[in-house]
Amino acid sequence: MASSSDPHIVIVGAGFGGLEAARHLASARVRITVIDQRNHHLFQPLLYQVGTASLATSEIAWPIRYLLRRHSNVTTLLGRVIGVDTGNKTVVVEDEKPVPFDTLILATGARHAYFGHDEWEPYAPGLKTLEDATKIRRRILSAFEQAEWATNEAERARLLTFVIIGAGPTGVELAGTIAELAHDTLRGDFRNFDTRKARVILIEAGPRILSGFTEDLSDYAQRALTRLGVEIRLGHAVSRCSEEGVELGGEFLPASTIIWAAGVAASPAAEWLHAPADRAGRVMVMPDLTVPGHPDIFVIGDAAHVESTDGKLVPGVAPAAKQEGQYVARAIQARLRGEKFGENFVYKNAGNLATIGKRAAIVDFGWIQLKGRLAWWIWGIAHIFFLIGLRNRLAVAMNWLWIYVRGQRSARLITQGAAKKGAAS
Amino acid sequence: MASSSDPHIVIVGAGFGGLEAARHLASARVRITVIDQRNHHLFQPLLYQVGTASLATSEIAWPIRYLLRRHSNVTTLLGRVIGVDTGNKTVVVEDEKPVPFDTLILATGARHAYFGHDEWEPYAPGLKTLEDATKIRRRILSAFEQAEWATNEAERARLLTFVIIGAGPTGVELAGTIAELAHDTLRGDFRNFDTRKARVILIEAGPRILSGFTEDLSDYAQRALTRLGVEIRLGHAVSRCSEEGVELGGEFLPASTIIWAAGVAASPAAEWLHAPADRAGRVMVMPDLTVPGHPDIFVIGDAAHVESTDGKLVPGVAPAAKQEGQYVARAIQARLRGEKFGENFVYKNAGNLATIGKRAAIVDFGWIQLKGRLAWWIWGIAHIFFLIGLRNRLAVAMNWLWIYVRGQRSARLITQGAAKKGAAS
Repeated sequence: MASSSDPHIVIVGAGFGGLEAARHLASARVRITVIDQRNHHLFQPLLYQVGTASLATSEIAWPIRYLLRRHSNVTTLLGRVIGVDTGNKTVVVEDEKPVPFDTLILATGARHAYFGHDEWEPYAPGLKTLEDATKIRRRILSAFEQAEWATNEAERARLLTFVIIGAGPTGVELAGTIAELAHDTLRGDFRNFDTRKARVILIEAGPRILSGFTEDLSDYAQRALTRLGVEIRLGHAVSRCSEEGVELGGEFLPASTIIWAAGVAASPAAEWLHAPADRAGRVMVMPDLTVPGHPDIFVIGDAAHVESTDGKLVPGVAPAAKQEGQYVARAIQARLRGEKFGENFVYKNAGNLATIGKRAAIVDFGWIQLKGRLAWWIWGIAHIFFLIGLRNRLAVAMNWLWIYVRGQRSARLITQGAAKKGAAS
Repeated sequence: MASSSDPHIVIVGAGFGGLEAARHLASARVRITVIDQRNHHLFQPLLYQVGTASLATSEIAWPIRYLLRRHSNVTTLLGRVIGVDTGNKTVVVEDEKPVPFDTLILATGARHAYFGHDEWEPYAPGLKTLEDATKIRRRILSAFEQAEWATNEAERARLLTFVIIGAGPTGVELAGTIAELAHDTLRGDFRNFDTRKARVILIEAGPRILSGFTEDLSDYAQRALTRLGVEIRLGHAVSRCSEEGVELGGEFLPASTIIWAAGVAASPAAEWLHAPADRAGRVMVMPDLTVPGHPDIFVIGDAAHVESTDGKLVPGVAPAAKQEGQYVARAIQARLRGEKFGENFVYKNAGNLATIGKRAAIVDFGWIQLKGRLAWWIWGIAHIFFLIGLRNRLAVAMNWLWIYVRGQRSARLITQGAAKKGAAS
């Protein structure tokens, strides 16, 4: 049991990094408080499957306090952190009393960013939270529903055009799954049009899709996406998003559903701390992940700008955040034992995966690259393995089986109001 | 295949009654259009389990057009019907063109009613839709989350008091499940209080709970609920609901979570038709379920006031709605064949079931009454049987197994924003 004289460690954010830090610190003689603005930890890598009606929200989310229930020295609090008082060493929480800390770990993540065009957000929602995912699911399904009513072919074509902006893993996975939804799952459910006429357009400003992978894998992914019916537009940035569609390279594409998968901005941790940040708002941390001038404050995960030993930016992926959480837990425990902890954080690349529809994927482990069916199986097994709990593993496996064998997706629900014509809801 | 000269039957509402009518008419030489304001058919009898974090939304809801996909003469439309033009024989749909009909079946259901106190709705939400269920789930879980922050014992006690108004099957099922949530599922997840201190209070204006059952079964249910820790207040109607709590019989009960399970009002079908209605707004239909003066318009399910051969009101339950849907389908097919269909609708009571927590239930088949574990097994098996599709049956059975064996509920998610202090969201 922890006593009230034990050092108090506050962790803000229970994503991959914060949760890993809490679990690795829980065995020490410390009191830990985890604060998150959501009551659930989210398995972000499968969030696009909630957005495309393949999985239910509860299959990729777990109550944070449930995950930490066995650690009696860990208190979980649901609250929105809005600042850090570095002088008094307290965390400022909306509508609640400040929470004092001895050591602070900020693992507050990132949101999508519109590169100075926040006015596009209502027309082109991004995908970071469960609410984002149910909103995107509602828009996609509502577009098909409205197309069943349409009396004008141009309007129907606009309703059946889905534009995804940004061809990183999320954009590619969304495009592939929407194409399968249109060509396979929904086929036969409508009377007034053929769902296979739906257009899925993936827009990327750079010269190729999945630029984080080798050219060979990226070429393969492009061919696999094209085979699924996805149109790929490379080398043009979107210059306008509206209710009517998107504009790129002087061309206007009428589209009722636009999804933003192009950029992220870190949470405002840097502003709270008045700390130096990179262009995406990530805190420029020291090699030991502390904030310059604040040795008791760590920033990890997507909120931090961390450089590998080769000088490259550590990517904003789950394994990196977990490694940082573990590293910080070790560093704090060493300090508590009065030891010197000279070791800097070193990122180990565990491999890079992306999937394209239900039979293709690419995997890059560094020492080997794989593509096709084998890669797809590795992708699927790895994701089920990293889910938490037997029940969710079974539930996700069962859903995938149904999609694979019968083409049916279980979560085709429009909730929180069907999208109205012309309403950006 | 249907041809455009075939008679056009419009069905408004794809609940139990509307869906059953559509399926039984689909084999005839008719064109059918099903219009619903939701894209999904909902298995209402288990909705309280979504409200109490036991089941996921997608496990009790199916896309309507998916359920009707094999019938090429059935068109499904997502739209909000706002009126009926009986002169022109069209259905008026919000934001869409009117839909003409030869025969109309209104199966528009009911909403909860506050007996002239609609101002209570923000404080005491009812349970009819998936959104209602996720709202109630959010309120229940948020109350526990806020109690973890509370510094004042009176405030914590208010946060941990859950009031359910109305002790019909839904009220009883909610009260039993919330008690289990507090005493079992959530136990051990909080650090600043014991979740078993939560109070669950079931308020009923009548002299006993579950008044639709025999006195013996109702007594048993009352004892079972009391054993689960539910406090039952009989013989007092609530005289006020507010953010702070409820008032009954001169007493004020501070409570942060109030759920309304006390009354229903039919959808406005009677207003659309200018037809006679009972006090709850149900259309007073003829013995053949048509509207007086409108032989081509049928009203079924919770929207209709139907009397049994013994003069009693047919209850607002799924089996009654299904029987009415089948009857109307037969009546319409007989008319189409030019036959006289003299038969009136006769309700066959298939039995009455209610469950109290995870080990007790009551079942009344008329010829036999059962209570306890056996009744609970019958209740569980019957509900799984009536779910649609193997996948959902497996998913629900798996969730129940987890609840039964491990006390864990899978859908403990607060979505669409955590409830703010004092906010009726």
